[in-house]
Amino acid sequence: MRRIALGVEYAGDAFEGWQSQPHGRTVQDVLEAALAKIGGEPVRLHCAGRTDTGVHATAQVAHFDTAAVRPMSAWVRGVNAHLPRAVVVRWAVAVDEDFHARFLAYERRYRYVLVNAPTRPALLAGRVGWFHLPLDARAMAAAVAHLAGSHDFTTFRAAGCQARSPIRHMHEATVRREGACFVFDFRADGFLHHMIRNLVGALVYVGKGRYPPDWLAEVLAARDRSLAAPTFAPDGLYLCGVSYPPRWSLPDDGRIIAVPQLPLI
Amino acid sequence: MRRIALGVEYAGDAFEGWQSQPHGRTVQDVLEAALAKIGGEPVRLHCAGRTDTGVHATAQVAHFDTAAVRPMSAWVRGVNAHLPRAVVVRWAVAVDEDFHARFLAYERRYRYVLVNAPTRPALLAGRVGWFHLPLDARAMAAAVAHLAGSHDFTTFRAAGCQARSPIRHMHEATVRREGACFVFDFRADGFLHHMIRNLVGALVYVGKGRYPPDWLAEVLAARDRSLAAPTFAPDGLYLCGVSYPPRWSLPDDGRIIAVPQLPLI
Repeated sequence: MRRIALGVEYAGDAFEGWQSQPHGRTVQDVLEAALAKIGGEPVRLHCAGRTDTGVHATAQVAHFDTAAVRPMSAWVRGVNAHLPRAVVVRWAVAVDEDFHARFLAYERRYRYVLVNAPTRPALLAGRVGWFHLPLDARAMAAAVAHLAGSHDFTTFRAAGCQARSPIRHMHEATVRREGACFVFDFRADGFLHHMIRNLVGALVYVGKGRYPPDWLAEVLAARDRSLAAPTFAPDGLYLCGVSYPPRWSLPDDGRIIAVPQLPLI
Repeated sequence: MRRIALGVEYAGDAFEGWQSQPHGRTVQDVLEAALAKIGGEPVRLHCAGRTDTGVHATAQVAHFDTAAVRPMSAWVRGVNAHLPRAVVVRWAVAVDEDFHARFLAYERRYRYVLVNAPTRPALLAGRVGWFHLPLDARAMAAAVAHLAGSHDFTTFRAAGCQARSPIRHMHEATVRREGACFVFDFRADGFLHHMIRNLVGALVYVGKGRYPPDWLAEVLAARDRSLAAPTFAPDGLYLCGVSYPPRWSLPDDGRIIAVPQLPLI
């Protein structure tokens, strides 16, 4: 058997999340079907981050085992020919059988892009979050700074979250204004279910002036989901980087390629 | 009667072009229906640039006449509540009855965004063009420089184009690399049918080395559509600015707001 790692990009609004479902409308389902066509046998994918419905990825990483011997280009171009247009394999590399896309990932990066404008986005509907009232960038930056470090993130954890521990180490948490957008960047060893969408909801509460920045530290310390803000829409959320130990030297490792002049907002 | 001008943004891949059709799946059709709901009477829109199927707009301008008296916010927020998510009214202003969105526009700006990467885009499928082989930025820049000024653009005109004259004045024609993208900007008094998609097709011929940059000047001078390249896909084409004489002082006049850090490619 050979183990192969893939880099995958997808538009989350075209799928019902990553994880396989009986109805088959998930990223995992369409990818496994396309891989099976190229390999001539069923395959089972394991991914770094099981994104929810509506959540996008620029750099999801997944692996599978196969007995089929194919050139790596077949696992990219061949598979892509069998995929819907909202998902694409960006690279494929052979890895040792002790590689694991989920268990060896020591850091995930997520970005949330929020349009702050009076009218809703049309060109990027489903691809960016939206808030219509002016947001205070400085207040949000002060609030987000409370998140760096190791914390019990119970306050920002979905009721159905199946993680064994609510403690995560946040290596980076920032927010900055970019034109009509706010860009939230989060880098951590891992994330709880709905954690980023719950954090963005709380940061928007601070940004619109409902609470001062220190309120974020208070609700974080309280470890009580009912104290924070509602879960924000998935539309603006992107899995845009997964880090593995250097020995794996995977391509595109967490690289974000911007599109600086796309006239979308 | 009152005349009202609108600024409109839409994703062209969700519609069969701007211009009204019996089946009703055009931007004009859904906009006229939403305006009729707010105004309580049928309206007829006139736009600055009748975009084809698949062509997007960040700053389309249109006007209509109405006997209904409504606050301007009703022509924005009220109308938006009745529109599909792929189209939005960004602003509405009352104008004198001698305003005309089409006949008074003295300049239109279009941008074509082309992803130049081995694998097709998934997140921006339908929103950017794609070419998989490396393109020579300098050769394309040298070629596009031949387009500035007044020319007979017959070579780049669709067979069915109904314009009376094939002569257009190109105020600006540039191409530059932005990360994994090429961004083509065109500014002219007007454009013939398929003109930009035909120009992009020819520039890609130069970029991939099929012809030298001066070939573009030769085929332009030959005034023969059969000598140039095939029409490029509409996916990457955006109407992103329309200019009117200053006395109209319309909002957002040709303004392009970039989204610098959207992790889409």
